[in-house]
Amino acid sequence: MIRFYNGKVLNISEKFDDKITVSEEELWVEDSKIAFKGIPSSKDLEGKTFEREIDLQGNLLMPGFKDAHTHTAMTFLRSYADDLPLQEWLYDKVFPHEAKLDAESIVPFTKLGIMEYLTSGITASFDMYFYLDAYVQANIDCGFRTVLCGAMNDFDKDYTQLERDYEKFNGMHPLISHKIGFHAEYTTCMERMEYVASLAKKYKAPVFMHNSETKSEVEGCIERYGKTPMKLLSDLGMFEYGGGGFHCVHVNDEDMDIMKEKNVWAITNPCSNAKLASGIAPIDKFMKKGVGLAIGTDGAASNNALDMFREMYLVSVLQKLSLEDAAAVDGADVLKMACVGGAKAMGLDDCTNLEVGKQADLIVIDLHRPNMQPILNIPKNIVYSGSKENVKLTMIAGKVLYENGEFFIGEDPEKIYAQAHAHAKNIFAQVEC
Amino acid sequence: MIRFYNGKVLNISEKFDDKITVSEEELWVEDSKIAFKGIPSSKDLEGKTFEREIDLQGNLLMPGFKDAHTHTAMTFLRSYADDLPLQEWLYDKVFPHEAKLDAESIVPFTKLGIMEYLTSGITASFDMYFYLDAYVQANIDCGFRTVLCGAMNDFDKDYTQLERDYEKFNGMHPLISHKIGFHAEYTTCMERMEYVASLAKKYKAPVFMHNSETKSEVEGCIERYGKTPMKLLSDLGMFEYGGGGFHCVHVNDEDMDIMKEKNVWAITNPCSNAKLASGIAPIDKFMKKGVGLAIGTDGAASNNALDMFREMYLVSVLQKLSLEDAAAVDGADVLKMACVGGAKAMGLDDCTNLEVGKQADLIVIDLHRPNMQPILNIPKNIVYSGSKENVKLTMIAGKVLYENGEFFIGEDPEKIYAQAHAHAKNIFAQVEC
Repeated sequence: MIRFYNGKVLNISEKFDDKITVSEEELWVEDSKIAFKGIPSSKDLEGKTFEREIDLQGNLLMPGFKDAHTHTAMTFLRSYADDLPLQEWLYDKVFPHEAKLDAESIVPFTKLGIMEYLTSGITASFDMYFYLDAYVQANIDCGFRTVLCGAMNDFDKDYTQLERDYEKFNGMHPLISHKIGFHAEYTTCMERMEYVASLAKKYKAPVFMHNSETKSEVEGCIERYGKTPMKLLSDLGMFEYGGGGFHCVHVNDEDMDIMKEKNVWAITNPCSNAKLASGIAPIDKFMKKGVGLAIGTDGAASNNALDMFREMYLVSVLQKLSLEDAAAVDGADVLKMACVGGAKAMGLDDCTNLEVGKQADLIVIDLHRPNMQPILNIPKNIVYSGSKENVKLTMIAGKVLYENGEFFIGEDPEKIYAQAHAHAKNIFAQVEC
Repeated sequence: MIRFYNGKVLNISEKFDDKITVSEEELWVEDSKIAFKGIPSSKDLEGKTFEREIDLQGNLLMPGFKDAHTHTAMTFLRSYADDLPLQEWLYDKVFPHEAKLDAESIVPFTKLGIMEYLTSGITASFDMYFYLDAYVQANIDCGFRTVLCGAMNDFDKDYTQLERDYEKFNGMHPLISHKIGFHAEYTTCMERMEYVASLAKKYKAPVFMHNSETKSEVEGCIERYGKTPMKLLSDLGMFEYGGGGFHCVHVNDEDMDIMKEKNVWAITNPCSNAKLASGIAPIDKFMKKGVGLAIGTDGAASNNALDMFREMYLVSVLQKLSLEDAAAVDGADVLKMACVGGAKAMGLDDCTNLEVGKQADLIVIDLHRPNMQPILNIPKNIVYSGSKENVKLTMIAGKVLYENGEFFIGEDPEKIYAQAHAHAKNIFAQVEC
C-alpha cells in the first residue's frame, strides 16, 4: 500500500456539470487501485503498514490526463518537416518515411512518446498506428496504459485483421485494450466501411476514426456520397453503439446533432489543427449541444509536443479568439475534458477520477512553483499557467513511472534516445527528399 | 571566470535573414560578459583557472529570451478573474484591485514574476507598471535585468514624472534602464501625448506604448482624431527616433509602412491577445514588410503564464491558422524574435546573442528530455516542442540565478510565495466584487 498524505486532492465528478473541488485528504493505493480517500481516523491507521509514504508537502493529487488521440511512434518525425504546406508535408515527408518503419524501430519511438506523456502527466493514450504487437509490448514494458484504435484503410492487404486485433488485444493485459476503428472516410472504400459497421453491430461496440479534420476532406466526402462524413457513417449504422471522431473541425449543425444523439465523442486536437492550418473545432458549440468532448495531442510530427497543458490552453483560448468572446469555454470545463472526458471516450471507465475502487492513474502537481502562485484558483492555474514543470509524479495502475524528473520504466532514457536517434537516421537515409 | 564546456552553442545573428546555426564550442564568462567562445587551444587553457566549470553534457547554450512586453507584478491577479468578458475583467476585476497595490506589495509580486521568467529562460523584461522604486529594487535584489517603460496616462497627477524617471533610472545600475513610454492613446490626452513627443525629440529617444490592441481602441482613435493610433502618434513626431507598439493586432497597411519607415517595433503578445479575444497580430505581414518583431507575455492576469515557449508556439501557429497556410511564419524566425528581436527593441544591444564582449545573459537548454528527441532540428525543437522543463540554467550578467529547478536570487522561494499570497489575500479582502 502506498500512502499519499499532507496534500490536496482534485475532485472531478463524472457528471460534466458538477463543479471541480479541492479537498485536503489522504489517498491510499493498493496494487493498481485507489483503496482509501479521506481523512483517516486513528483506527484507520491502526496497525497499518505502508510500503511507501509520500509526503505531498501541500501539493495536489489529481487524475492523470488522457491523450484521447495520438500516434505515439510518430516521435521519429519531430522537427523533421515543419513549416511546409499540408500536402507536401503529408505526401513528401510523412508517408514515405512511415513506409520505412518496422517493428524494431517502433519500439524506441513508442518509448520516447511514452516518456513524454509521463512528463506531461498523461496516464493513458488512445493510439492509432502500425506494428501493434511491437507497440503493445513497448507499452507493457514501460507500464503505460494504452487503448489501441483500429487504423484500417484501403492500403491494408487484409482488412479483416481489424477483427482479429479487436479479439486479440481486448483482455490480453490489464493495461491494454482495443477499439474498433479505421483511418478515415477518405482513405477507406465503402465495402470496408460497411465491414466496420458490421463489426460495430456484432460486438455492440463504438467506432472511432479521423473525421472532418480538413475542409477538403468534408468537401470530398460530399462529392463522393452527397453527405458529410459524420452523416455518411451514421447512415451506415456505424454509431449504433456510439463512437468518436478525431479532430471534428469542420462539422455542421446536423453533424453535431447526430453526435449528440448517437453518443459520438468529439476528440479535439487543437495544436495539430493549428500547426497544420486545418482550423478551429467548434468546442463552444459542442458544449452547448451536449456533445461529449475529449482532448488529444495527435502525433509529434504535427504538434510537435505531446503536452496536455498546451492542448488544454489552446482548447480554451482558440474558442475565445474565434468567437471574439473572452468568456467562451471556461478553463475548468477544459480540465474535465482532459481527465474524465478522455477516459470515458476511451472506454476507461475505471480511470476517470480519484474515487475509491478506481485505477490509481494519477499525478502530483507541484504547487510550489512560481507559475502556480498565488493559489487563488487551482483548476485555472492548471489550465492557464500550468506546464510540464509542475508534474512531480506520474502513477499508472498504482506504479510510479515518473518522479522528480526521473523515469522508472525499466530502461535507461539515454538508451532509448540513442536507439530512437539511430533508427530515425536510418529511416531518413533510406528516403530521398 | 566560468567555463561552459562539452556542449553546443546556438548562434543567432543580429541580421534577421541569417540562418541559425549550432556549433560545438566552449563559452567562458568573465564577470558579466562573454570572454571567450570557440574551441580552446591548449595555449588558451594554459594556466587558466576557472571559478566554476560547467559540463554541459551535450546540452545547448543559447541567448536568453527577452520578454518585450509585460507587467511583472500582475502575478497577483493570476487565476483571479478568468473567462470573463473583456470589459468586466478590466473594469470590475483589474482596475479596482490594482488601485490597492502599494510599494510593499509590489516587491513579492515582482519577485514571483522574476522567478517565473527564470524558469522559462527569460533574461530580461520590458516592464510597464507602478511603484518603480520598489519594482527596480526587487529586480536588483534578484539580479534580474529589466527595462522600464514609462506608463504615463491621464490618471497621473504629475505627468512630468516621466522625464524624471527617465533621467533617474538610466545609468543608475547596470541591470536597469528606462524607455520613454506612455500607457496608450485611449488613456492619454493630446497635451500629454505632445509632451511625450517633445521628450522623444529632447532625448533623441524611441517611444513605446500599447498600440492597436483591440478593434474598439482603433475605432475610438479614428473617431477622436480621424486617424489610427499609429498614424496619429507618428504625425505627432513621436517616432522620430523609433519606438515600439505593444500588441499591434489591428493595424492596417499604412500603419505598417509607418512602422517600417520610422523603425517602430511590433511587440506581439499572442497568448494575452488570444485569452482576451483581442485578435491575432499580422506577424506574417509584418515580416514581409520588414517591420521589426519582438515577443512579450503581457501580465499574468491576462495570459496567465510568463512563458516564452508558449508565446513562441502561438506566434507561429496562430499565423498558420489565420492564414490557412501551414508554411506561414517559420519557427526559426520566431526564435530570432524572442532572443535578438526582443533585445534590440528594448535597447539591450549588448544582450542580443552569444558573441564575445556581449553580456552573459544566457540559458542552458536540456536536450536530454523526451520532448527534445530525436535531435533533428534544434531551433524547431525549441519552438515547437520546447517547454520550461528544458530550462536547465538561467544566467544574467554572468550570474547563475536558476539551475536544475533551484533559484539563486537571494531569498527563499517559499518566503516569496507566502508574502505574495498574504498581500493578494489582503488586496482582495479590500475590494467588493
